[in-house]
Amino acid sequence: MTRTIVESKTKTAIIGFDQPFCVIGERINPTGRKILNEELERGDFSRVEADAIAQVAAGATVLDINSGAVFSNKMAEDPRYADNNFVEPELMRQLVERVQKVVDVPLCIDSSVPGALEKGLAAAEGRPLLNSVTGEEERLELVLPLVKKYNVPVVAISNDDTGISEDPEVRFAVAKKIVERAADFGIPAHDIVVDPLVMPIGAMATAGHQVFTLVRRLREELGVNTTCGASNISFGLPNRHGVNNAFLPMAMGAGMTSAIMNPVALPIGPKAIAEKKAAIAAAGITLPADMDDETFVTLFGMGSTQPRAGKEMEAIRAANLLMNQDAGGANWIAFNKPAGTAGESGGRRGGRRRRA
Amino acid sequence: MTRTIVESKTKTAIIGFDQPFCVIGERINPTGRKILNEELERGDFSRVEADAIAQVAAGATVLDINSGAVFSNKMAEDPRYADNNFVEPELMRQLVERVQKVVDVPLCIDSSVPGALEKGLAAAEGRPLLNSVTGEEERLELVLPLVKKYNVPVVAISNDDTGISEDPEVRFAVAKKIVERAADFGIPAHDIVVDPLVMPIGAMATAGHQVFTLVRRLREELGVNTTCGASNISFGLPNRHGVNNAFLPMAMGAGMTSAIMNPVALPIGPKAIAEKKAAIAAAGITLPADMDDETFVTLFGMGSTQPRAGKEMEAIRAANLLMNQDAGGANWIAFNKPAGTAGESGGRRGGRRRRA
Repeated sequence: MTRTIVESKTKTAIIGFDQPFCVIGERINPTGRKILNEELERGDFSRVEADAIAQVAAGATVLDINSGAVFSNKMAEDPRYADNNFVEPELMRQLVERVQKVVDVPLCIDSSVPGALEKGLAAAEGRPLLNSVTGEEERLELVLPLVKKYNVPVVAISNDDTGISEDPEVRFAVAKKIVERAADFGIPAHDIVVDPLVMPIGAMATAGHQVFTLVRRLREELGVNTTCGASNISFGLPNRHGVNNAFLPMAMGAGMTSAIMNPVALPIGPKAIAEKKAAIAAAGITLPADMDDETFVTLFGMGSTQPRAGKEMEAIRAANLLMNQDAGGANWIAFNKPAGTAGESGGRRGGRRRRA
Repeated sequence: MTRTIVESKTKTAIIGFDQPFCVIGERINPTGRKILNEELERGDFSRVEADAIAQVAAGATVLDINSGAVFSNKMAEDPRYADNNFVEPELMRQLVERVQKVVDVPLCIDSSVPGALEKGLAAAEGRPLLNSVTGEEERLELVLPLVKKYNVPVVAISNDDTGISEDPEVRFAVAKKIVERAADFGIPAHDIVVDPLVMPIGAMATAGHQVFTLVRRLREELGVNTTCGASNISFGLPNRHGVNNAFLPMAMGAGMTSAIMNPVALPIGPKAIAEKKAAIAAAGITLPADMDDETFVTLFGMGSTQPRAGKEMEAIRAANLLMNQDAGGANWIAFNKPAGTAGESGGRRGGRRRRA
């Protein structure tokens, strides 16, 4: 039974064939999050801390920390900031330290900059997961020594110097090469978590089949744990959550043991509230002037103004149960305890509920 | 590629390894539906007709017709009604004829009474599915000749004279015996749809594993299509839809090709509306006196007073896409077209939408 052990100061998370699915929270990542990027540039880590807390509350047992920020304003003043080898190591150190102050879960140190990986490894308490090595020669030579030096597990992404192959046979071969190369460094297969790369199903009709087949082979032939950027599967499609919610259980059934994903449902924001209030006014309803937003969104069945576990977490918890990783359903039952929101239709019809 | 062909007067449904999942609507069944049972005793088929239409609208491509009513009032007047061999054949004929008048989809003739099976077969246009044969000797001898005589496919349930085994090896052996016995009658494996029997996961922690393993073996070793009573898996658990929504994609990933299930979300009823209105009044909100129920439930995010596709259908459609049975995602995109319900939060967050 393959087990990959990751640790924080006091907590252990196990990625393993005989374990509940490991949810690696992806939110602490400035790539594509303009506001977060700007905040980091100003040295404001409040959102990072809130995201860390919300993801753990929603069920993430590992948090990914990605330092890929672009500090355009600082760059204008100091050209050194144009170089990520300058920006990321220091930012990674700060991110790791900030996150460790508010949550005690193992971290996944995520950067394309080797210096940032090393700073993250040095700052992290316990045994973090390193993200990532690929089949690219330069990357193998830079990252595997770090993996060995710090005795940590590593995410291995199955692309190489020729790029990302659309042929799953090639992606399997790349994964196999990384596992073999790691063995040369004395790194065991159980410390490698392979990401077989998930293509968007809207662009490649066989993308689902590819992942399910690859995961099974990686598990049976290489004995490795697997992960993926789960939401890639639904890129470009409507109702992405609907696709993700089916994909995750199917991937788990095929043997996938972790995913890098967002466990948090986005809270209802001011814009959605304003739109709903306009619809309500148009229907001839007057609201009490002192009604707070959370009461409002609850009453109107909109969800919550607070972050909470997303539907994907419900799908994963149900799949854990179906994979016999929740004997007697104790976790499922606890997850579905009504939160005292009588009259909320979502509950009765099997909708999302807040954790008790 | 195994294909089981079922037909109505003009429509064909294919259960097959290379086909979208076949949803067999289960609602036309008086067992456990007291009101429906009473209506049928009075000769009122209005609910049957409405259920037929709603299930097809929600995405069922085959409708199960179960004649297992108990006519207690008639029984008091005429003791012949105590015998299901007297009640069911005539009721089955009526059910089949009524349903065929309102929808044109293949039927699944479902009874434990051989006379009802034969009446259903005689009344059904096209090529219905027969439900069911088991491994019980008497049942094999009664049903397989009907299957042969009418040249129809049949659901084979993997229990026998010793009952339902908790051992999946035994259930596989029973299915194998039925397939072999059918072959003696000249019935090909592609006309047998095996139900490997789904146990409640709350009572048996290995129930998911059992089904996934059995489905794979039935497909690979016997070359047969498979079905199940999908909602059994969540029996006794909270948030049953959450379990079902994960189970169905996982079963599809393992190779299951159909399920007997309810494709319709129960409409919001008067009780839920009254409870919500009380909560609204308590919050100090006065509603316009002339607001109709559908406007009300939409505005308050409760769903609909009309039947519509349940969350399970979203899971199945997403899994079809992931199994490469919806190339380019055309069906997924059509299913998720917004229905002009602006301000409904469910849509934006990936919730259920009505079909366009």
